[in-house]
Amino acid sequence: MAKSKKQRSFLRIIPLGGLGEVGKNMLLLEWVERFATSGKILIIDMGLQFPGEDTPGIDFIIPNIKYLERKEKNIVGVIFTHGHYDHIGAIPYLIEKLKYPKLFAAPLTAGIIAKRQEEFPHLKKLDIKKIEPGGRIKLGPFKIEFIKMTHNIPDTFGLFILTPIGNLFHTADFKFDLTPLYDAPSNINKLKEFGERKILMLFSDSTGAENPGHSISEKNIQENLEEIFKKAPGRIIAATFASLINRVQQIIYLSEKYGRKVAIDGYTMKTNIDISRALNYLKIAEKTLINPKNISSFADKKITVLCTGAQGEERAILMKIANKRHPYIKLKKDDSVIFSSSVIPGNERTVQILKDNLLRQGAKVFHYKMMDIHAGGHAQKEELKKMLEIMRPKFFMPVHGQYSMLASHSEIAGEYGLEEKNIALAENGDIIRINSKKLSIEKRVVPSNYVMVDGLGVGDVGEIVLRDRQAMAKDGMFVIIAVIDRQTGKVKGNPDIISRGFIYLRESKQLLSETRKKVIEIVEQTTSSNGTVNWIYIKDQIRNKIGEFLFQKTQRRPMVLPVVIKV
Amino acid sequence: MAKSKKQRSFLRIIPLGGLGEVGKNMLLLEWVERFATSGKILIIDMGLQFPGEDTPGIDFIIPNIKYLERKEKNIVGVIFTHGHYDHIGAIPYLIEKLKYPKLFAAPLTAGIIAKRQEEFPHLKKLDIKKIEPGGRIKLGPFKIEFIKMTHNIPDTFGLFILTPIGNLFHTADFKFDLTPLYDAPSNINKLKEFGERKILMLFSDSTGAENPGHSISEKNIQENLEEIFKKAPGRIIAATFASLINRVQQIIYLSEKYGRKVAIDGYTMKTNIDISRALNYLKIAEKTLINPKNISSFADKKITVLCTGAQGEERAILMKIANKRHPYIKLKKDDSVIFSSSVIPGNERTVQILKDNLLRQGAKVFHYKMMDIHAGGHAQKEELKKMLEIMRPKFFMPVHGQYSMLASHSEIAGEYGLEEKNIALAENGDIIRINSKKLSIEKRVVPSNYVMVDGLGVGDVGEIVLRDRQAMAKDGMFVIIAVIDRQTGKVKGNPDIISRGFIYLRESKQLLSETRKKVIEIVEQTTSSNGTVNWIYIKDQIRNKIGEFLFQKTQRRPMVLPVVIKV
Repeated sequence: MAKSKKQRSFLRIIPLGGLGEVGKNMLLLEWVERFATSGKILIIDMGLQFPGEDTPGIDFIIPNIKYLERKEKNIVGVIFTHGHYDHIGAIPYLIEKLKYPKLFAAPLTAGIIAKRQEEFPHLKKLDIKKIEPGGRIKLGPFKIEFIKMTHNIPDTFGLFILTPIGNLFHTADFKFDLTPLYDAPSNINKLKEFGERKILMLFSDSTGAENPGHSISEKNIQENLEEIFKKAPGRIIAATFASLINRVQQIIYLSEKYGRKVAIDGYTMKTNIDISRALNYLKIAEKTLINPKNISSFADKKITVLCTGAQGEERAILMKIANKRHPYIKLKKDDSVIFSSSVIPGNERTVQILKDNLLRQGAKVFHYKMMDIHAGGHAQKEELKKMLEIMRPKFFMPVHGQYSMLASHSEIAGEYGLEEKNIALAENGDIIRINSKKLSIEKRVVPSNYVMVDGLGVGDVGEIVLRDRQAMAKDGMFVIIAVIDRQTGKVKGNPDIISRGFIYLRESKQLLSETRKKVIEIVEQTTSSNGTVNWIYIKDQIRNKIGEFLFQKTQRRPMVLPVVIKV
Repeated sequence: MAKSKKQRSFLRIIPLGGLGEVGKNMLLLEWVERFATSGKILIIDMGLQFPGEDTPGIDFIIPNIKYLERKEKNIVGVIFTHGHYDHIGAIPYLIEKLKYPKLFAAPLTAGIIAKRQEEFPHLKKLDIKKIEPGGRIKLGPFKIEFIKMTHNIPDTFGLFILTPIGNLFHTADFKFDLTPLYDAPSNINKLKEFGERKILMLFSDSTGAENPGHSISEKNIQENLEEIFKKAPGRIIAATFASLINRVQQIIYLSEKYGRKVAIDGYTMKTNIDISRALNYLKIAEKTLINPKNISSFADKKITVLCTGAQGEERAILMKIANKRHPYIKLKKDDSVIFSSSVIPGNERTVQILKDNLLRQGAKVFHYKMMDIHAGGHAQKEELKKMLEIMRPKFFMPVHGQYSMLASHSEIAGEYGLEEKNIALAENGDIIRINSKKLSIEKRVVPSNYVMVDGLGVGDVGEIVLRDRQAMAKDGMFVIIAVIDRQTGKVKGNPDIISRGFIYLRESKQLLSETRKKVIEIVEQTTSSNGTVNWIYIKDQIRNKIGEFLFQKTQRRPMVLPVVIKV
């Protein structure tokens, strides 16, 4: 056939996570040479997702890497855009299966990854190549140039990727903040340079794509926080994400300015601050920090407590304070509690309860709905338009976010002027195929269902286990144990019943005794009807008939589990 | 003693629900004559609350009426301020226990209550006295005058209550909307008249107290909805609460204006529309309504579907449409779906998933974060100030809302000029005692813990059942059945194991066989050590040691339930 090389080689783009959801970001770029069926694979990020109501008891959800099975040697490297867990958190669960590929990250990102790896002592220590902004590397067919982007953690990298068919740009999580604090603004001139080198495809952060206008500058946030610091009559208790290093810096800066000592509390908060400080990303005067144990040695007006728990996490410091379970910090009437973070969808009720408990104890509570004391780390509509204008890509793919965010970002790209056929509105498990001329999508061809981490198990909790958990959460369970005489087919004694989460047993004696009677009836009807005893049939009969009986009596459907013991 | 009558008689105010939460509103006013310990009781509202994550499997939560036990004959009447379920929904569960007291409500409210009562055929038909705006009744020591308030359901009543110590005003749920639609604005002159008659105590709706400014007028909402109607290229599918009768009217009005037929779908939506229409609260031309079955007989541009499900409720119509389970309505690319309601805290994730599913099928989705197509029914800060200025009360009690809302409303009252000692920042179960001079609060003296409705059971699901449900939702359960020979103390055969929600059993054969072995060991160690067999001790040993073993192996803690059968 007379097809040219260009027509036959192509780039396969496979989102394994982060598209159609917020979290577990992981993107594959696979360069496939002509005539080949698979090629060299570059991985961008390996994040985790926090569980929701639909995944009870689960610790984390991680990307499904089935597609990479037996392709480990094709992986030319893994690049981490920044140190947030939705971009790095799945490493300990995936890295061994991927046979320890080469890892690349900025110094702070590498520090956070290495520190976390220590929590998994059975794993090998990781060898992460550190990249500075402006750095360049070559990994197989990909040449990558790293550019600093503004996000809410330092050392966030955008990626300019040269491939045989053209240049790609991946924004990572970003926003344009012309007045960020403790951080240079996104390097717009450098971005424009990339744009001028021609972008075949732009991958851009969609998390803020449904929000109109421009994200709030950190400078405004700082001004509002400063108002609180100026007026606070007693202690300030500031809760935020441990990973919002820039916010942590703001609070420490203001504490120093207003003569407050800072007590840092919470394991992840301390760890992240230690790493950031060691690498010089955080400026704290030595005398500023005090041990939470010693806060009562200082006047209340001289104290800031910086802690985790703004999401209402059960075991975090702020919850301990609110519930009077903190060993050193008891709330007082003049305390000011600052929630400097947004509420993650699903946590609204818990955060409300937390806020109420703080208020009941007389504290003053400040949160982001009252005033701008938190800004997200993500570009909003106007910023996303600006990115499109700078990059002028031929193809566009919205990444990071719920489907509604990706759809909104596609609309923005449409308004900017891209044709629908050049926009990859894709989801996890799709394969997007591009060459220099054409983009096509195959829907749902790569396994992308949830892989759940629960305790030591990775991937062993599946649909069935989850469905059972949900069923028992709803109406409980009801185990019936009948001892049956093999000879006579009769029930010996009274059947045992164990039930949890269904009714309060002590107050339901009559229902239980009726149920026992019914079980005996069912067994004896079944065993007397024919010669050989069908044990499976007996169990089915108990399950169905007792289930129906309990429903009739209570309008609840506990999980009925019959056990038949033959003696 | 020389104390005057005034010093000794007093009013007891007891919130049984609605304070420190959103939902299950129920307030008692008890007039206690001097020397008496209890008195005549007026009840305002009897609402229910929808369950949350912390109450899995529960249908509703209702007020705890233990305080009213053996005081049924003291109840002079129950007044319902309006027809929303958080104000009337607990009636079928409480009315019999309260021995059918006298009920009073506006015509629409009475219609909704009566219709709901039909779902409880074992209960008596209710005799509700209908009250028109401006109506007056006398109930024991209370004289009540009813005034129309603006909310998002017609026939909402504020209550001017004359008592022997002074006048009270209860706002009910309200907002000031100077340009409401299909409804007269709150009668401000009448309110001012009440204010001039002197208000001893104001009870005012706090639901919007954390929101600055003024609530959005329904006129603006209508204008924005009209923009969508003007441009929609195909069908409009509008989802809202069935109880938002005013919104329903807007959508029907716009459909008629733009020549669209309206298909109403969803049981509660249909019922509420029927009642409102029969009582003339809804204006719909006969030819407007069509059966959802027949929507394909009309051009898409001529169709509005009006349905429930804007909260992502699993069984509501919109969810069926999104999940392709609706018999007549399949989504098309040109459909416009309107979410005309706010998202109830706790439902954010579900609504996001619903929205994503609609978008995936190509529909256009409009929701209240994109534009003002929904307004709440509750006064915001400026409106609440205005109410205080009109009523100029001596005492003030914020009602309806989370603690943070009540606290914010108290702050507003403080800014308006009330002293802290005259503000009753109270919660469910507190007793507020006032006479004409003084207000005092006793905290948490009346039972106010949750009473849960689950199937046919009212109040039988308590802390223990809920805790078990939550535990099983987290890590599942693990039942071990050991048949033990009474004589030898040895386990006969292999112990049975039933587990759900813990691990996938088929893939955990080794763990199960190790566990069985361990059970046998535990039993035989325990029974061999002494002469008499302590069966309770055996069970405890199995529970603790197997629990520990499973945790060690999996880092999960299923509920371990040992059953010992002696043969």
